[in-house]
Amino acid sequence: MFITFEGIDGSGKSTQARRLAAALEAEGRPVVLTREPGGSPGAEEIRRLVLEGDPARWSAATELLLFTAARRDHLERLIAPALAEGKIVICDRFVDSTRMYQGLSRGDLRAEVDALHRLMIGREADLTFLIDIDPAVGLARAKGRQTAEERFEDFGLGLQEQMRAGFLALAQEFAPRFCVIDGARAPDAVAASILARAREALA
Amino acid sequence: MFITFEGIDGSGKSTQARRLAAALEAEGRPVVLTREPGGSPGAEEIRRLVLEGDPARWSAATELLLFTAARRDHLERLIAPALAEGKIVICDRFVDSTRMYQGLSRGDLRAEVDALHRLMIGREADLTFLIDIDPAVGLARAKGRQTAEERFEDFGLGLQEQMRAGFLALAQEFAPRFCVIDGARAPDAVAASILARAREALA
Repeated sequence: MFITFEGIDGSGKSTQARRLAAALEAEGRPVVLTREPGGSPGAEEIRRLVLEGDPARWSAATELLLFTAARRDHLERLIAPALAEGKIVICDRFVDSTRMYQGLSRGDLRAEVDALHRLMIGREADLTFLIDIDPAVGLARAKGRQTAEERFEDFGLGLQEQMRAGFLALAQEFAPRFCVIDGARAPDAVAASILARAREALA
Repeated sequence: MFITFEGIDGSGKSTQARRLAAALEAEGRPVVLTREPGGSPGAEEIRRLVLEGDPARWSAATELLLFTAARRDHLERLIAPALAEGKIVICDRFVDSTRMYQGLSRGDLRAEVDALHRLMIGREADLTFLIDIDPAVGLARAKGRQTAEERFEDFGLGLQEQMRAGFLALAQEFAPRFCVIDGARAPDAVAASILARAREALA
């Protein structure tokens, strides 16, 4: 079972991914919690190459290729082996984030994102939690913990509105694997909804 | 006019690329001499990521994506702008090397190399010089100048034989742009053949 978390910045997806991993582990299930970009030593090196330094030095197309290289490494070295061992893999962001960022906001490369994914990755999640939240709330949260690396979050409210709509459209496009979660509620309530849905899928 | 040099290690292609650039410059033509992997600041960073460190840490597929990212950056930042200014771009290795290394020797990824190239690069050379040489001679030359980075040259004679045959097959597949040069002759004679052919193409 391969579970991914998606959503705009500040939606709480990283927190909720950690909470789901902890809850499933507490039930005695084998869980691997990981994140993108990065997640394997090689992919983390590529992440640093992309996210550190001058944000303008890579075009959206080059960035797409670099992130796809990182995803391929992550898939080969961590995700696929863990799934083959029967583990639950929980990943904070996966290809849906690329569909949004390189496909919609930074570039207009959605067709290239999908073609590259089919060609070099070929794996979608079994279950994707989209944590949906009002962008004004998400942006305020994201700014509260901004690091030098998080340049993707530095695009303002207009972009976040576009992203939210884009993620909701993706959830329709790939409806069977998507579960849209209302992220405006208290974290405990959000975590309970997610755990219930994950248990259902695992049963 | 976009001219590339290809051939097995030790074929003399880097020397001949430099000589052609110098000869055309001496005739007053605007020339940009570059090389792959690398050739632009971003692409050189990707080159270091791939070629330094443990050679086994990247799979052939991940390496293919990284080299395609480097090529995209090189194309956008250096090759395409120089061609747009009417310059002659001479490049030591281009996608034909990827067709051979990731497509044939390290991986069996020729179909993926071509699909990625069509999708993200979309540019072939106008004229490609394949410097053809007996692999035993090429290998001896390459070993004489081996650096830590040149791990691709550390595969022995069997691989070089396979590469030579592969490059000659590519020259047939893409016949109109290929010019096969006998690299066993003295460097001056080789340079003269290449210059004559380049002048013809430029006329």
